Amino acid sequence: MKALLLIAHGSRRQQSNDEVVVLAEKLKKNSAGQYDIIHAGFLELAETLIPDGIKKCVDDGATSIVVLPYFLNSGRHVIEDIPEIVNATKPLYPEADIKIAPHLGASELMMDLLISSANSTR
Amino acid sequence: MKALLLIAHGSRRQQSNDEVVVLAEKLKKNSAGQYDIIHAGFLELAETLIPDGIKKCVDDGATSIVVLPYFLNSGRHVIEDIPEIVNATKPLYPEADIKIAPHLGASELMMDLLISSANSTR
Repeated sequence: MKALLLIAHGSRRQQSNDEVVVLAEKLKKNSAGQYDIIHAGFLELAETLIPDGIKKCVDDGATSIVVLPYFLNSGRHVIEDIPEIVNATKPLYPEADIKIAPHLGASELMMDLLISSANSTR
Repeated sequence: MKALLLIAHGSRRQQSNDEVVVLAEKLKKNSAGQYDIIHAGFLELAETLIPDGIKKCVDDGATSIVVLPYFLNSGRHVIEDIPEIVNATKPLYPEADIKIAPHLGASELMMDLLISSANSTR
C-alpha cells in the first residue's frame, strides 16, 4: 500500500495548520487512487509531527511512503531538517520504503500554476 | 502593458530570495507573452520590497499590475499585510490598475502539482 505524507512547516495559527489537513483530505479524493493512504504532518509547532505521521502511515498498512515537503523554497527545512527527521525515523520501520519527494517549488508545473493564479485575478 | 509582480515572503538566506528572482525570470520565458513585464518582490527582509516592485512595473510602462502572493497558506501575510501595502501604494499610481491575485495555495491546480511532485520521487 502506497502512502503520501504531506509535510508543511506548521504554524502557531491553527487555521493555517487546518488548511494543510483539509488539503491532504482533498488530495485523497483527487489522487485517483494513486495513493491508498494520505496524511498531513508538520515539521514543527503543530501536530502531527513527522515521526508520528510516518507511524500513522505504517499503522494504516503502508509499505511505501512518499514524504512530500509542502514548501516553496529549498531552505534549511527542506535541505536539512526534513531529511534528518525522516532518516532518523526510517530504522524504526525497516519493512517500509520511505522516500522524500522534491519540494513543491521545484515542480515543473509551478509555471502553469503561477500563470493560472495570476489570470484568476478579478 | 500588463505586469505580474511575484511577491514572496523574503528570507535572511539570500539563496532563497535568489530562487524567487530566478523563478520570476523563468516565468517571463514561460508566460507566452501574457505578461509584458514580470518582476519579483518581497514582503520583508529582502530587496525589492512591494512598493518598489510596483514602482518598477510602472516605470517599465505597466498599465495593469497583478500582484501574485507566492504563499501557500492564507495567513496574516496574505490576508492583511500584502493587501495593506498594496492599497497604501495604489494612490501613487492612479493611472495603473493594480490587483492582487489569489495566493498560490488557493489554486485549483495545486492538486495536480502535489501528485506530480509525489510521483517524481526517485
